[in-house]
Amino acid sequence: MTETDSASLSHHDRMARKKAARDKMMAGKTQEKGLIIVHTGPGKGKTTAALGLAIRALGHGMRVSIIQFVKGKRDTAERHILERFAPQLEIQALGEGFTWETQDREKDILAASRAWGVAKQHISNSNYGMIILDELNILLRDATLPVAEVLEALAARPPMTHVVITGRGAPAELIEMADLVTEMTLVKHPFKQGVAAQAGIEF
Amino acid sequence: MTETDSASLSHHDRMARKKAARDKMMAGKTQEKGLIIVHTGPGKGKTTAALGLAIRALGHGMRVSIIQFVKGKRDTAERHILERFAPQLEIQALGEGFTWETQDREKDILAASRAWGVAKQHISNSNYGMIILDELNILLRDATLPVAEVLEALAARPPMTHVVITGRGAPAELIEMADLVTEMTLVKHPFKQGVAAQAGIEF
Repeated sequence: MTETDSASLSHHDRMARKKAARDKMMAGKTQEKGLIIVHTGPGKGKTTAALGLAIRALGHGMRVSIIQFVKGKRDTAERHILERFAPQLEIQALGEGFTWETQDREKDILAASRAWGVAKQHISNSNYGMIILDELNILLRDATLPVAEVLEALAARPPMTHVVITGRGAPAELIEMADLVTEMTLVKHPFKQGVAAQAGIEF
Repeated sequence: MTETDSASLSHHDRMARKKAARDKMMAGKTQEKGLIIVHTGPGKGKTTAALGLAIRALGHGMRVSIIQFVKGKRDTAERHILERFAPQLEIQALGEGFTWETQDREKDILAASRAWGVAKQHISNSNYGMIILDELNILLRDATLPVAEVLEALAARPPMTHVVITGRGAPAELIEMADLVTEMTLVKHPFKQGVAAQAGIEF
């Protein structure tokens, strides 16, 4: 069908054709499996989109574990809300602060390894439907945690477990293994205009 | 300071310098105001990141209104969870389905105008700390709702109200007015590999 043919159709007919094409496409998608989902890039929304996925998963009755690999100072409000979903949702802040806050590489590596120990247990436990490894990419990028070890645990996970990994600088090997990768690109940021980090937006 | 100078410093000293620079940057960001936040682009995470922002805002005690301009068939699980936060959080699905589902432009325009009427009231009501206009961009892109009318209501909102607008194809005038714009870019998608839309991820 050419562009001209399409334009000569009524809105109803064009939309009916679109629906038929879409239904056909969706009918071919039948495989169900646990996904590896990566939110990366310099833009906002990597962690917040993961929290939104947690809400969806909770709505479907899944047990969800959130492990924060980089401890923020300001996430208390968010945790307070998420803790209402305990025990269906577990949330643990196991990392240290950003490297420029801790200024101690030994301490960072120790905290990362401890947090990863917990994450690995949850990933291998099929009672969890979704595991969120928040800011894990940062640790992989800085080699605070070895990429190979993470990939191995992901590959060995139960078949229906979804794992969501956030943070800038996702390593190429992880992107290669992932099923769904979204890059958040910053188009405009209020910091650039002198606006402060604000409750409910940045933390 | 040259690259070589930086490399010769200890990890501790480099991180201390980074922290000092960052603290200085953050100290200059003092203005507090309600933000217009846009999540656009072809990637995943536009709506889920908005849900995550809703959770943060709730944690800070804000009253939040979510208005869904395009009614999904499958968002019952998500709504079920979010309704636990009533009355602090209100969620209303006021739109029709996607245009290829309704196949009726008159009906789409009527539903859009009705939904926008509710949205406008909430935007002008300073009791709400955050208003999420989910998939509004789709309606603006398709001219189902006039952009000028939306921009006018946004400009006239109370000074501390945050408005989050999601959907592909955000119009240039909206991006121009927004404080924070993130484009979600699709790097990899499981549909392309024959994997079905799944509970907790796609809906």
